[in-house]
Amino acid sequence: MALPIGTTVRAFAPASVSNLGSGFDVLGLAVDGAGDTVLARRIAEPGVRLDAVRGDGGVLPTTAEANTAGIAAKATLELAGVDIGVALELDKGLPIGSGLGSSAASAVAASWAVNLLLGKPLRKRDLIEACLEAEAAIAGRHADNVAPSLLGGLVLVRRVDPLDVVRLPVPQGLVLAVITPDLVVHTKMAREVLPDAIPLPSLVSNTADIAAFVTACFTGDLTLFARSIGDAVVAPKRTELIRGGAHAIEAALAAGALGSSVSGAGPSLFAFCRSQRQAEHVARAAQDALRANGVESRVLLSPADCPGVRQV
Amino acid sequence: MALPIGTTVRAFAPASVSNLGSGFDVLGLAVDGAGDTVLARRIAEPGVRLDAVRGDGGVLPTTAEANTAGIAAKATLELAGVDIGVALELDKGLPIGSGLGSSAASAVAASWAVNLLLGKPLRKRDLIEACLEAEAAIAGRHADNVAPSLLGGLVLVRRVDPLDVVRLPVPQGLVLAVITPDLVVHTKMAREVLPDAIPLPSLVSNTADIAAFVTACFTGDLTLFARSIGDAVVAPKRTELIRGGAHAIEAALAAGALGSSVSGAGPSLFAFCRSQRQAEHVARAAQDALRANGVESRVLLSPADCPGVRQV
Repeated sequence: MALPIGTTVRAFAPASVSNLGSGFDVLGLAVDGAGDTVLARRIAEPGVRLDAVRGDGGVLPTTAEANTAGIAAKATLELAGVDIGVALELDKGLPIGSGLGSSAASAVAASWAVNLLLGKPLRKRDLIEACLEAEAAIAGRHADNVAPSLLGGLVLVRRVDPLDVVRLPVPQGLVLAVITPDLVVHTKMAREVLPDAIPLPSLVSNTADIAAFVTACFTGDLTLFARSIGDAVVAPKRTELIRGGAHAIEAALAAGALGSSVSGAGPSLFAFCRSQRQAEHVARAAQDALRANGVESRVLLSPADCPGVRQV
Repeated sequence: MALPIGTTVRAFAPASVSNLGSGFDVLGLAVDGAGDTVLARRIAEPGVRLDAVRGDGGVLPTTAEANTAGIAAKATLELAGVDIGVALELDKGLPIGSGLGSSAASAVAASWAVNLLLGKPLRKRDLIEACLEAEAAIAGRHADNVAPSLLGGLVLVRRVDPLDVVRLPVPQGLVLAVITPDLVVHTKMAREVLPDAIPLPSLVSNTADIAAFVTACFTGDLTLFARSIGDAVVAPKRTELIRGGAHAIEAALAAGALGSSVSGAGPSLFAFCRSQRQAEHVARAAQDALRANGVESRVLLSPADCPGVRQV
């Protein structure tokens, strides 16, 4: 049952780190401490309205039809088969174009807020499809950000059409350091540097690494985990787009990170660490390396196993 | 301590199914009921001698320097750092060029037999390197047959240089049907049909599938297991080399197999089944499909979780 007209709910959707080395377009991980918030109010007139977008520096579309929050809200209503009216206010807590699933977080927060207004007829898993529609309109039809932002934790997107998503366990106690250089890398540009064709040995290397990564997630073997965060295909190309990126990854590894690479389209970098203390040390090392290249950066530390979208 | 001069030991090394869909060059599974046997006798004069090769129809090299059994035996002595003399007799229980790791089984049986003669100074895992040397001389430097033939069960070869091999769990109760068409497909030809470069979407699809396959091995989710035995790159090309192969795989799936594809370089086909009875049914269906294409075949049914090399 939908809540009465005038009711408001608020949902927070976390940022997400995608790819994680060899999992280009198929692996994503929810992050804590950064994300987007959507306030949804039930209104009398049917349809979705976007009343406010804050924290984006004025760069995001402000109509419900063009903003991922509005698109996902509308798709959620359609998925639920309910024709109520919803007014949204979006608070961006995530930098745009940072490789941390900013557009996905907006979509997920809006989708969950609408589902809450409807009395929760749908499960989080059902909402992936609605959020994917929003992503498809803006960033490409991939679910490796919306799925972890919805479900939390580590998610494998086996297929997008038809959707086939599996949650994976995260080795206990890991801490993720996310370093976001103060640079803009557009998703489109990050897609354009990708090779159209890759050599067969790179396929072998990446399939071997993702298989080992998944194995390590189940067994908790951190040395195997550390060996498996490699990518012969995508990360090297995207790292080239990030001034100081290669140095920062090297510095993170030298400082003890289990693995480090580019998150999604970049420029954010991530590093898996064994403890909070190590993560602080690793983040500092990566920041120093970026600074030596003239690039300032922000750091986010998060447990590696985090919840997904929730009411706040 | 090496056993006295004149002592004989006998080792049996099982066949193996490699690739398993998306795991080209990285996944292999030991099979029961077919394999090679090596009798090793300690002799006075140092070095490795190959006294007999039986069951190969006269096509295999008969010198210790050219036969994988001899090469692996020599490499095992070197690995152990012991300079005794060994005379080998090889009984081929595996058809050659069938895609079931025939050269690997000879190497593994010889390596283990030599290790037994030496008083077992080395673990099975240590012997992968010695057997890999033999494979490199004959079939290419890949470990996806020698590793499962040694260790048993399902094995992930993360890297060959340096060697990085991980055992994976096999879902309980699965039965493997192996169908070997009466055709010759040379490994070299099977390698030549491989594309030099593959499109990026095939990388995404194969990494997604192998990640899902490994997940299913750990969770025992057989529906996920069934969805994940796909390969966008290698199996389709190799199936083309097998007359009736595509029909046989279709027939196996239609008969209820969880997944079916080409084993290694082919022409053997494999199908994972839920029970012995289903495996019999699936194998018959695949054989009928091959026969409709004018191709006779042999069938081997095996539990999916089998031991590796052993003394017999």
